[in-house]
Amino acid sequence: MPTLFRKVKDVRNYIRNLRHSAENNYSVGLVPTMGYLHEGHMELVRKSKLQNDITVVSIYVNPLQFGKGEDYERYPRDLERDLAMCEEAGVDIVFAPTDEEIYPQKPKVEINVEGISNVLEGAFRTGHFSGVALIVLKLFNIVQPDRAYFGEKDFQQLKLIERLVRDLSYPVEIVPVPTVRDKDGLALSSRNTYLKENERESALSIYRSFLIAQKLFKVGNTKAEDLKEAIKDYISRHPHVKKIDYVEIVDEEFNIKSDEVSEGDRILVAVWIGDTRLIDNWRLSYEEV
Amino acid sequence: MPTLFRKVKDVRNYIRNLRHSAENNYSVGLVPTMGYLHEGHMELVRKSKLQNDITVVSIYVNPLQFGKGEDYERYPRDLERDLAMCEEAGVDIVFAPTDEEIYPQKPKVEINVEGISNVLEGAFRTGHFSGVALIVLKLFNIVQPDRAYFGEKDFQQLKLIERLVRDLSYPVEIVPVPTVRDKDGLALSSRNTYLKENERESALSIYRSFLIAQKLFKVGNTKAEDLKEAIKDYISRHPHVKKIDYVEIVDEEFNIKSDEVSEGDRILVAVWIGDTRLIDNWRLSYEEV
Repeated sequence: MPTLFRKVKDVRNYIRNLRHSAENNYSVGLVPTMGYLHEGHMELVRKSKLQNDITVVSIYVNPLQFGKGEDYERYPRDLERDLAMCEEAGVDIVFAPTDEEIYPQKPKVEINVEGISNVLEGAFRTGHFSGVALIVLKLFNIVQPDRAYFGEKDFQQLKLIERLVRDLSYPVEIVPVPTVRDKDGLALSSRNTYLKENERESALSIYRSFLIAQKLFKVGNTKAEDLKEAIKDYISRHPHVKKIDYVEIVDEEFNIKSDEVSEGDRILVAVWIGDTRLIDNWRLSYEEV
Repeated sequence: MPTLFRKVKDVRNYIRNLRHSAENNYSVGLVPTMGYLHEGHMELVRKSKLQNDITVVSIYVNPLQFGKGEDYERYPRDLERDLAMCEEAGVDIVFAPTDEEIYPQKPKVEINVEGISNVLEGAFRTGHFSGVALIVLKLFNIVQPDRAYFGEKDFQQLKLIERLVRDLSYPVEIVPVPTVRDKDGLALSSRNTYLKENERESALSIYRSFLIAQKLFKVGNTKAEDLKEAIKDYISRHPHVKKIDYVEIVDEEFNIKSDEVSEGDRILVAVWIGDTRLIDNWRLSYEEV
């Protein structure tokens, strides 16, 4: 069973003592999650276990990264199941703090990354990325990991964190882990649990639209507008698709590509399927899928 | 002689190895400075040496905390003299990085603390406190000190840092150190070097105005307006006083007091003496000065 901590002070002291007791300074990997774990999270855990002596999974549904009217209340939670999955995967430490531990008072700090925090996800979810930045930096300061693992599924979040770490000289290596998909192509997300069966069928249009764009790109169409239109056209033809928040293409530095795209650029998509908002992304490449 | 480092990687590795080689985990104190050291800085160093096994002084004139048209270029610098003073004081490590080391690329992160970053100093010096926050957090992440020492002279900066550390769960204890004054009462500052002799005489009006306000307070006048007016009146009567940017009173949580003041509240002042902008502050108390 992983050792479960609920308090900042306890987990910090425990990790410090562990580290100091070791001859060669244990390395620590952190997998920050909001719980309701799935195979995507487990992929992060496996990667961490390969690279570190100790793997810490944090489980915390961070209220600050949810906007008004978003799904904070209904976000799925199941600590017991999460702990069982962590045990199965050989996680050493689970840190599942209470709100009072993380926010003993309302934070006054606001953290923005120019060109990332306020576009795409950030434009549709005001304050989201400041909340993400705050909780991730807090977790870094509490756990003080050598490496931290983030899924490419939340690509804009990954880019935000990478930039924060660089600009603030954090002594943490950020390890990106490719998106895990179900057999039918749906990107794993705790929010998939919101989908009714027929909605789920429509949600597959996101993945399939990527394959269409990917094919267009491979046969030589490198116009951002064409790829984006093909994706929008395809997705919007499906039932239960209530709204497409955005379809956009960015380069590795998160600059939005309005003209020609090239290998390594990312398609980013946010779509409402019924009352469920899904995000997904795809890296354009010349390789076979 | 203190060990001098110019590179992030070198100072980080050196401190890490030092710590790990010690039986009982050395404690590390950090004194962040912009150099051109004076007795105020040395007071921070003395405090750090009392409380820690290792004392690190950082010396870096951070361009990001200077606004356009401010004194970044003419800010006094003298590394040799600083190193001699550090040696004299028994400093273990001096970290004096180059701009390229600290900002290998232009940072995109902006850090604000609501109610602190954009008032008083922050209102007169746009972007100043985001620059301060960035460099201080960077230094914390590079040196990873147990304690960091800040002078009360820069009171708003101190409050900013205290709040950042709390909100971001930094494992650093912030130790405030009272302002050191010359015999005539002028608060020590590297910028005092800008003052011509007759300007310096006028600059003393700041300290003396505090004594007047303090006396008013002690005899029972607790009206913020009265104290502020007395200060403004007194200072502005002196030659070379070009402009008073603000005279304000805040409580310990940095709320601006517009009505009744009480013991522990702080008077904050920014005044232009000729071409030199000076800041100073005073804690209201019932004790004798």
